[in-house]
Amino acid sequence: MPSFDLLIIGGGPAGHVAAKEAVAGGLSVALAERHLLGGTCLNVGCIPTKVLLGATSAAAELKAQQKRKLCSGEISFDLKALMQRKDRLVAGSRQAVEKELTALGVTLFKGEATFTGPTAAVVRTAEDETPLAFRHAILATGTRPAVFPGLAADGVRVLDSDALLSLQHIPQSILILGGGAIGLELGEWLSRLGTTIILVEAADRLAPLEDPEISAQLKTALAREGWKIHLGKKAISLQTVGDAARCQLEDGSVLEAQLALTALGRRPNTDGLGLEAAGMSTDARGFIQIDDHLRAAPTVHAVGDVNGRALWAHAAMHQARHAVRAMVTSQDKPYPFPSMPGCIYGTHEVMRVGKTSRQLASSGREVFVSRAPLAANPLAQAHGASAGLIQCVWDGEHLAGVTAMGWNVSHLVTLAQALVDRHARRNDFESLIFAHPTLDESLEAALLHAPLERFGEA
Amino acid sequence: MPSFDLLIIGGGPAGHVAAKEAVAGGLSVALAERHLLGGTCLNVGCIPTKVLLGATSAAAELKAQQKRKLCSGEISFDLKALMQRKDRLVAGSRQAVEKELTALGVTLFKGEATFTGPTAAVVRTAEDETPLAFRHAILATGTRPAVFPGLAADGVRVLDSDALLSLQHIPQSILILGGGAIGLELGEWLSRLGTTIILVEAADRLAPLEDPEISAQLKTALAREGWKIHLGKKAISLQTVGDAARCQLEDGSVLEAQLALTALGRRPNTDGLGLEAAGMSTDARGFIQIDDHLRAAPTVHAVGDVNGRALWAHAAMHQARHAVRAMVTSQDKPYPFPSMPGCIYGTHEVMRVGKTSRQLASSGREVFVSRAPLAANPLAQAHGASAGLIQCVWDGEHLAGVTAMGWNVSHLVTLAQALVDRHARRNDFESLIFAHPTLDESLEAALLHAPLERFGEA
Repeated sequence: MPSFDLLIIGGGPAGHVAAKEAVAGGLSVALAERHLLGGTCLNVGCIPTKVLLGATSAAAELKAQQKRKLCSGEISFDLKALMQRKDRLVAGSRQAVEKELTALGVTLFKGEATFTGPTAAVVRTAEDETPLAFRHAILATGTRPAVFPGLAADGVRVLDSDALLSLQHIPQSILILGGGAIGLELGEWLSRLGTTIILVEAADRLAPLEDPEISAQLKTALAREGWKIHLGKKAISLQTVGDAARCQLEDGSVLEAQLALTALGRRPNTDGLGLEAAGMSTDARGFIQIDDHLRAAPTVHAVGDVNGRALWAHAAMHQARHAVRAMVTSQDKPYPFPSMPGCIYGTHEVMRVGKTSRQLASSGREVFVSRAPLAANPLAQAHGASAGLIQCVWDGEHLAGVTAMGWNVSHLVTLAQALVDRHARRNDFESLIFAHPTLDESLEAALLHAPLERFGEA
Repeated sequence: MPSFDLLIIGGGPAGHVAAKEAVAGGLSVALAERHLLGGTCLNVGCIPTKVLLGATSAAAELKAQQKRKLCSGEISFDLKALMQRKDRLVAGSRQAVEKELTALGVTLFKGEATFTGPTAAVVRTAEDETPLAFRHAILATGTRPAVFPGLAADGVRVLDSDALLSLQHIPQSILILGGGAIGLELGEWLSRLGTTIILVEAADRLAPLEDPEISAQLKTALAREGWKIHLGKKAISLQTVGDAARCQLEDGSVLEAQLALTALGRRPNTDGLGLEAAGMSTDARGFIQIDDHLRAAPTVHAVGDVNGRALWAHAAMHQARHAVRAMVTSQDKPYPFPSMPGCIYGTHEVMRVGKTSRQLASSGREVFVSRAPLAANPLAQAHGASAGLIQCVWDGEHLAGVTAMGWNVSHLVTLAQALVDRHARRNDFESLIFAHPTLDESLEAALLHAPLERFGEA
């Protein structure tokens, strides 16, 4: 029976990084992936959405300047060529991952792994079944689109995000169920292709994980682009009816569009893993339960989306590094669960780093907020994109978070992260030199010059 | 005779910031501006060029995707509307400056100030002549386009950058003399409007203030856009001949275009100031001589472009703050002359922070360089813009500089500045979390993962 120091189940960002770090740490590594190397992020998540948004940004820039009558013109996108380009870039990266892992000596199994005990598993590929032994395992199987009764994708007019990323015809209209990152980014992309966007969100605001002020700014900006946004509306059914997608809301009203996207979150991939055999269990939402060391069982770390803590590729990679470090060094420290930076991309972007004002206030801290509108920024003005703002969150006197909505604010994310990491007082940031003119100067304005308002006193 | 704690001559970024800080510090302030509040930066520099580049970015994005056959289309810009938009934004900001300074109680003179002694000056406006007394003065008169014999703008077919920013017809071709920031940014803008760019630079590379590797990358990228670039060529005459601009080079060859731009640097505004009366003098290049406290005379600080040390608006503002601090506090420290972050904007951007490898090596340091190409970045790929790289410069083990060429690299400038400020070792940056996918990850790759090469061993 082949035996490995480390068995990794799942070849997404977490599995990929874990394999590299483990090899660097001297471990023998097997990695099993039942679908595609690169996981959700590379194949049906961060990367293809960014390719589609990046390739269509000219349409957004054109629209903004046309509104100001500075130019005229039209851009017509070739959807087939767009999809081919996306597929080529994704396939290229996927092949690069495979090549890299193979070159590192990682044993790759293209098949499904099932735990048969705390240090044993079996991997089924198309050809055969391999029992194997391991000392450590990392479970990083990720998530897939969530499905709710009555609201499931049917592959005809009702699609999930995986299917939408292989779209073959540009719809005239789309009904998007869910106002989180996935629904927003795909909506922004289709909007640039000329599709009318109808968005339904059960919560009372878009991007419900963000600060309410950011949600409000986003709604205003998207409504101005022509999005029809229904907030606080619960859908009770979504299905193909004739040549349309039809959605019935709890309040009795009915919405129709040529296509629909269900983007109601993600559910963990935990089926067929033999969780009990390795001593693992799931929480109420179905995610793998972990302790404060990211351990799901004495021999198994569960990292990335599958543990449900922070559904970001960079969070998954960060957790993977921590898990491997515990195996290859004598340091078995608790995982700090840091606040993860996050972005929503598009014409109207969202960025968040550290704590939100609500999070801090709910833990009893004295919270202040300072803001700078992008309307005053010369670069945002130049791009005809003056909606939005940057908000700094202060834990007493110390910077604890930054969030923003507006043109290109994703570009501020690592800068904001580096500043929040200092957890410093306002005056401590005075020595940082901001070049002129930059979008960064709006962050400077919020950081150094805007009045501090006590949270809750608006 | 009216008397002020501080007389500021020049209402550009330095004068504006100095006035605000001085009022905050309790000083009575007079500010004299003979031309336009906002100075070069607002009126004929950073801001109008960014407005024109921002408003035309759709053309660059479209071109990049058309090359990949992902879309078809055409954009036609209305030059008159573009110019009106620029003029409106600039005028709005200028009025805001005037309103702010007036509200702060600054006495504004729209006229020319001349020193008549170490604590006395006279200001001539259209209406009258006001003698006044001061305790401190700040000289911040900036620069204007440099003029060289035989290469002067004639206002017909040969323009300087001030005149080009009021262009009334899009030329079919333009001959740009000078491959620095001004020539490059205006060339990028006109290139988007369809103008053929012919660029002549006396040095053997574009952007001669940048690292040679950045210059080379930039040349490759612009040549691929169709620019005709002549390096190491000295122009001996440039003039309107018939309905063309004609340039004769030292090697005997002749270049012609419909229009020409002289962008050969800047010369200081020192005329009519009565420098001697206040005890000031100029250096060999004509810039105001200052000591290590930014003082040009016992009662006068000379800050910003006019002292010739760092021709950036943010450098001018930084110096202005230092000068006022010396007046309003008892701290009269030497000015540290920090390395200033800088960007060149356009489709192919340049960013630089801290020291370049050459600067460090020439001061005898042990220098290492690490690089990451943008070709591997998913966002650069998405935008069809994979040219360029990010380069980190290490002073022994410590990060001392970052520079880059490529798509959107100006967005990394303050992040790079914050990292260089730490002057830390490679490992010290490991705790910073980079969101995925971001352009910032290419900086992460250069910072943390790329091999370190000893400078000079290529």
